[in-house]
Amino acid sequence: MADVETKEERMILVAVDGGEESMYALSWCLKNIISSNSNDTLLLLYSKPPRVVYSALDGTGYLFSSDVMATMERYSKELADSVMEKAKRVCRGYSEATKVETMVEHGDPRDVICEVAEKIKPQVLVMGSHGYGLIKRAFLGSVSNHCAQNVKCPVLIVKMPKH
Amino acid sequence: MADVETKEERMILVAVDGGEESMYALSWCLKNIISSNSNDTLLLLYSKPPRVVYSALDGTGYLFSSDVMATMERYSKELADSVMEKAKRVCRGYSEATKVETMVEHGDPRDVICEVAEKIKPQVLVMGSHGYGLIKRAFLGSVSNHCAQNVKCPVLIVKMPKH
Repeated sequence: MADVETKEERMILVAVDGGEESMYALSWCLKNIISSNSNDTLLLLYSKPPRVVYSALDGTGYLFSSDVMATMERYSKELADSVMEKAKRVCRGYSEATKVETMVEHGDPRDVICEVAEKIKPQVLVMGSHGYGLIKRAFLGSVSNHCAQNVKCPVLIVKMPKH
Repeated sequence: MADVETKEERMILVAVDGGEESMYALSWCLKNIISSNSNDTLLLLYSKPPRVVYSALDGTGYLFSSDVMATMERYSKELADSVMEKAKRVCRGYSEATKVETMVEHGDPRDVICEVAEKIKPQVLVMGSHGYGLIKRAFLGSVSNHCAQNVKCPVLIVKMPKH
């Protein structure tokens, strides 16, 4: 019975950040939730750091020159592309048939993920439990924790096994 | 590919509390994760209030007589049975084939769920985001929040849609 039902179209939102744990979360989702005969669409979401952060990085009170800004923007874009390529490779490793879409947004991952989830109303949001760096997490709190409390759809939090 | 892989044996732990949200979480899991051709086992876990709580309910400083204790224990058992019956009915509504096991433990749901997850190491822990009453939650904090932070396996938190 469940087989028939999983054939309905589902949108599955996976937050990726390039870290090993988010890729593990993606694999887990592909292995345990997606079935190859389904009409599932996997939307991979990556959030680039917000642009305003760059002017604060300097610390001297001066804004960066447009050259530096352009370099950082390019680096940020390259990083996003590389994360998405890695994630798409993981998807292809499981099933060629699953539709995979990507979305890159600027902003704090907590806000970005909640806003996108609110907008597209996925069947489920999948994410790693950590990610986004230890120091950033100490300041901002856990991204997964924030999302689990704020999004309305089911949230699947996948932790990297210790071994 | 995923079809073949979901045929491996999976243990799925679902925390139920008799509330509408935990039953919705169970339905969501049956519809979206369990496939009827799989070897999945669904373990339904219910935690009864810890026995020691009864002596505090009085508030006079006197312990309850054994009669009162026995009545409460019986009531607690009947409640657990009724929750499990309800949950099993939900399961049968989706698939007769899925193996369903039940487990009832005494204790704070946060501890019970984490301990059972640690012991049986399920593929995924499924639970509602609320449950266990508004007042209790205010004192104890969110059960799902606690479990998401403490269990090692993937955690799926399902919220009841508002409409």
